[in-house]
Formats: sequence, structure tokens, C-alpha cells
Amino acid sequence: MIFIYKLIIVQTLQEKINNKTKPLASLGKLEQLAFQIGSIQNTLTPKLTQPTMVVFAGDHGIANEGVSAYPQEVTYQMVLNFLNQGAAINVFCNQHQLDLKIVDAGVNHDFASHPQLIPAKINHGTKNFLHEKAMTKEELDLCFVKGAAVVNTICKNNCNIIGFGEMGIGNTSAAATLMSAVCKLPLDQCVGRGTGLNDAQLAHKLDILSQAQMRHQGITDPYDLLQTYGGFEIVQMCSAMLFAHSRNMVIMVDGFIATTAYLMAFTINSEIKSNAIFCHLSDECGHRTLLNYLGAEPLLSLNMRLGEGSGCAVSYPIIKSAVAFLNEMASFDSAGVSNK
Amino acid sequence: MIFIYKLIIVQTLQEKINNKTKPLASLGKLEQLAFQIGSIQNTLTPKLTQPTMVVFAGDHGIANEGVSAYPQEVTYQMVLNFLNQGAAINVFCNQHQLDLKIVDAGVNHDFASHPQLIPAKINHGTKNFLHEKAMTKEELDLCFVKGAAVVNTICKNNCNIIGFGEMGIGNTSAAATLMSAVCKLPLDQCVGRGTGLNDAQLAHKLDILSQAQMRHQGITDPYDLLQTYGGFEIVQMCSAMLFAHSRNMVIMVDGFIATTAYLMAFTINSEIKSNAIFCHLSDECGHRTLLNYLGAEPLLSLNMRLGEGSGCAVSYPIIKSAVAFLNEMASFDSAGVSNK
Repeated sequence: MIFIYKLIIVQTLQEKINNKTKPLASLGKLEQLAFQIGSIQNTLTPKLTQPTMVVFAGDHGIANEGVSAYPQEVTYQMVLNFLNQGAAINVFCNQHQLDLKIVDAGVNHDFASHPQLIPAKINHGTKNFLHEKAMTKEELDLCFVKGAAVVNTICKNNCNIIGFGEMGIGNTSAAATLMSAVCKLPLDQCVGRGTGLNDAQLAHKLDILSQAQMRHQGITDPYDLLQTYGGFEIVQMCSAMLFAHSRNMVIMVDGFIATTAYLMAFTINSEIKSNAIFCHLSDECGHRTLLNYLGAEPLLSLNMRLGEGSGCAVSYPIIKSAVAFLNEMASFDSAGVSNK
Repeated sequence: MIFIYKLIIVQTLQEKINNKTKPLASLGKLEQLAFQIGSIQNTLTPKLTQPTMVVFAGDHGIANEGVSAYPQEVTYQMVLNFLNQGAAINVFCNQHQLDLKIVDAGVNHDFASHPQLIPAKINHGTKNFLHEKAMTKEELDLCFVKGAAVVNTICKNNCNIIGFGEMGIGNTSAAATLMSAVCKLPLDQCVGRGTGLNDAQLAHKLDILSQAQMRHQGITDPYDLLQTYGGFEIVQMCSAMLFAHSRNMVIMVDGFIATTAYLMAFTINSEIKSNAIFCHLSDECGHRTLLNYLGAEPLLSLNMRLGEGSGCAVSYPIIKSAVAFLNEMASFDSAGVSNK
């Protein structure tokens, strides 16, 4: 019965979109977004309430292997930059009135309390997965608990659209190994320049990750993979996405790392797809391949590769435009405009 | 001396962008936009003031040949829809606080006065260019006068960023013949489905436009081409863009028709390019080819093909993001974040 009701809404939704004063389908991806969000909320008049960006931050033992162009302390320094309103994500959230929360999922630094900081530290960075698993089973479980709890609090604050970003020096390494294992793709299709490696550094990164992959070969279970490669921010983000889906929120997915967290969530529960919007195509090598694997079409393609959820924040007004035209535009009938 | 000063600003601008707390070039096209707008305004702290969308509307004699999926009266009906706040462009301008003006450049209807309507009517639609030139030389000249006057008024209102859109049943036909003549490309690479022609209608449109092209072959002068094919809204938009450039405004270019007006303006004065932002890639066949001809890279690619300036309005927040990060983000030094 609920299924039939949903079917009627979906059909009526498409008719409503088609009867707006515009040539059929001429708003392109905005129409697909309007349809998707109307379907998620099961209504002809969807609303976006308390839009929120959550940036999960964590450190990575693998960073000790020289796989990043920046030193590990940049993770905590950038968290402080977020809290001081100085980063790109602050500017874009401020521009679009997005609530911004920073989650300390496992940064190698102890922060003073701050209204925007959610403490969810598992440990002071993961272990180096070149030599051992990134985290213990207990730490993995705790990541799932804390990631869900973060979204639970935000959801209770009346938020129905949530974007996910991250900060963590070394996390393109964790993401690339996860992607390679899940998508069964060779590492060189998954490993990129991250924050800006040169050719020699990129070759070194690939070499280190190949060694790590050899050490951990044969693992296919998504939970085991997350425990093996981490990091804390990726696992918490994966859990947070799954929880957001369980609360029927619209999920904005950012770039390479966030899409990898989504990949793990999708592997655990593929129904999450109906709630996901892929906000942009990152310039990080591997993101296009990953989106193709997921059958996902990104909204924007602006050659960005910053992380922090910046792609979500920049694309948010486009998502808002989709909802706005559905709610506010006249129909051919109401405007007295001749249809074909 | 002014040239040297400008050179210094441009160099310092790039340094300012590079020193923001983000990996080098990681904001992609946003960085290019910030650099472009800073260069236009010759400052390290550019501002966007009184952003305005102008929609030029006009009717076309060629519409009598059945080249559009919609009847000609839709032009005036849509103008009324704009004035009643019911169209897509109203919704998006409202969302982003863009001032919206509608110009009656030559609609086949007499409108009552309205605060958003700028009367600049040349005639009640152009003549049918299948049989004769779309307008007289006097009408052409008047289009240039009135198009410039529209922007002059807006510029005096402290606007420094202006977007151009259009409405006119039949205007993809005028645009396609102009593009074909200027770019020296066969008509079938320029002619598309417009508001939604089926295969047979598209073949008919191509046939009609080929006949018109035969009749008017050999014309290469841009003013003569504009007089020949029209329409009033395209010529006024071309003039308006040239005037906006003369006042050093940022020029937002919309889809296929607006880009054709830009093509004509560019042919008259190629320096306009430094001020132009190509807002989106339209789904109308020919737009990609036209952008390639102009060496222009569009910001968005959302499969839209609505006109009205909708692509400008939807991309405006992205442009605003570029200016915002340049003005508001911390630098590595100011935030105490380690650089590479």
C-alpha cells in the first residue's frame, strides 16, 4: 500500500516537473535533482532544512612513509584553521548559510573545546598500514558508533540534507587502497597526487601502497578492509553516511576520499544510492574511475581537489535551485502560456 | 606606466591565490575566476556589486516557417510570465538576489508598463529572413543604440556584473545562421532542436535555414549579418555586451543564443573576451562547437537548454564563491599552517 502511494507520488512528481513553463526536460540535471529529492521526501513540495556540512578529520600512520606533500601536523593546523573560520570550507559554508561541524575522529593533537568541534577521537592517528592494520577491531567498532552518533545529533536538529567532507594528511593513500580492493582495480588507477606530489613522490607513494597491498592481500570484507587501511575519519564518515540514509536525509558526497567512504557504505548497504548526490568531479586521479564504478554522475566539474567538503558546499546552491524551481515556478496552465 | 602597474597587480593576485590555505591550484576553476575578476577590476580585493540579469525578448519572422516547437505567442506569454515572477529565471534570480530586468527588444505584443520591463521595442518582430533581411539598416542602428542604453542605465545603478539571457520563439534559427556564417561551419553543425523539435521538424528547420542561407550567401560583415538574420533581441544583446565591456563590467554569457550574440560582439571587438564568463554548456546542438570556436570553457554542464539567462543565474553563486575565497580565506602565514 505504501509502495503504491509512493508510486503515485513519483508519477505526479514527474508530471509536476513537466508542466512547469519550460520546454520538456530543459532544466537538465536540475530536473533529475528535483525528482530525486521529491522522491526521497515522498512529496511534491520538498524542503531542505538546516543544511549541514560535517568535516571528519583524522591522522594516518602511513603519513610517516612520505606519501603526502605536506607534513602530518597540517591536519591539526587545518582543524584549527576551520575553527578560526579561515579555510575554504568556512567561506563557502558562510556564503550559503550551511551549518559547519568539524569532527575530531582521530587527529594527532588535543583540541580545546569549541562550539563547532565535535570530539569523537578514537586515537591520536591510525597505525601505519604498511606494517600492521590501521586500527583494532574495537577502534573500528567505535568509529561506527561515533560516526552514527554525530549524524544522530545533527538530524535531531531538524537537518534533512547533510554534506560530508574530510581532512587528513595521508588519507588519499588509505582511500586508494580501499578503492583498489573493493573495485578490484590495479593501484595505479586509484593512486593520485593528493595535495600535489611530483612524479618521483607519486612513484614512491605507489611503491609504498603496493607493498602495503601485498602485506594485506586477500581481504575482501568491507569492515576488515576499513580496519586494515583506515582511517578513523573515513570509517566514521562511512558510518555517518549509512546513518544519514537510515534517517532518510539527502546525502551530499564530496570528492575522492568522501566518495571512497561512500563506496564502503554502498558496499554495506547499496540502498544508500537513492539518497546520494555526487557533488563534483575531483581532479584527484581515481575519482572519475570511482564515480564510473558507482554509476554516478557528478554535478560539477571545476577541477577542484581540495577536500574539506568544498565540492559539496560549492554545489549546494545548485541543489537548492532544483528544489526552488519545483516549488516556485508557474505551470503552463497557471501562467497562461501555450504548450506545444 | 598603467600597464606596469597592472602587471604588478596581476602578479600579486596570483601570489595571493597561491598563499591561501589549500594545496596549490586545488580550487581549480574558482582560482581562474578569482584571477580573472581581480584582473578586470585591477585589484586584490574584487567585489561584485548590484549583480543584474537582463533578458532581451524579441519575435522572429522566421517563426512563421514552423522552425519552432512552440507558437510565436509564447514569446509574449513568457514575458508576462517573467513579469509575474513565474519563470525559471525569476526563481533563480530570487534565490541569488540578482536584479532582473526584461527588455522588450521587439516582441509582437504591446505591454503595459512594469517596474521590471524596459521598453526598447524596435518593431513587432523581425521580418522573415527566408524572403528578405530581418530588419532595416535603421532598425539595426536603433538596436545598437537601445542595447547600449539598457546597460548604461544598469551600470549607473552601481552594477559591475551583468548576465545576459533571451526569450524569442525562433531565435535558435537566427543564432544558427549567424554562427554558420561567422564560424564558416556547415549549418547542420549549428542547427539544433531548440525548444524540442522531433527529427522531422529538425530536418524541416535545417531545410528552411539552408534556403535562407542560399538567398543571403556571401555576406561576411558582422553588422550586415545581424541585419540579415536578426533578431532584435540578439542585436541588442550584442550591443549591450559591447557596452558592458566598455564599462569594464564582468559579463556572464548564458547558452546558445547569448553566446551567438557574444560571438558577434567578439567579432566586432575581440577584447571583450577578458571580461566574459561562459556560464554553462547548453544541451542545444551547436553550443559546444561554438564554445570551442571561441576557445571558451563553460563553468557548468548541467544539460540545461532553457535560455532566459537561466545558466547565468544558476552559476552566479560559483562566481561569488571565487570572489569570496579570494577575499576571505586565510593565508598559510596568517593561519599558522605549514606549507610544503
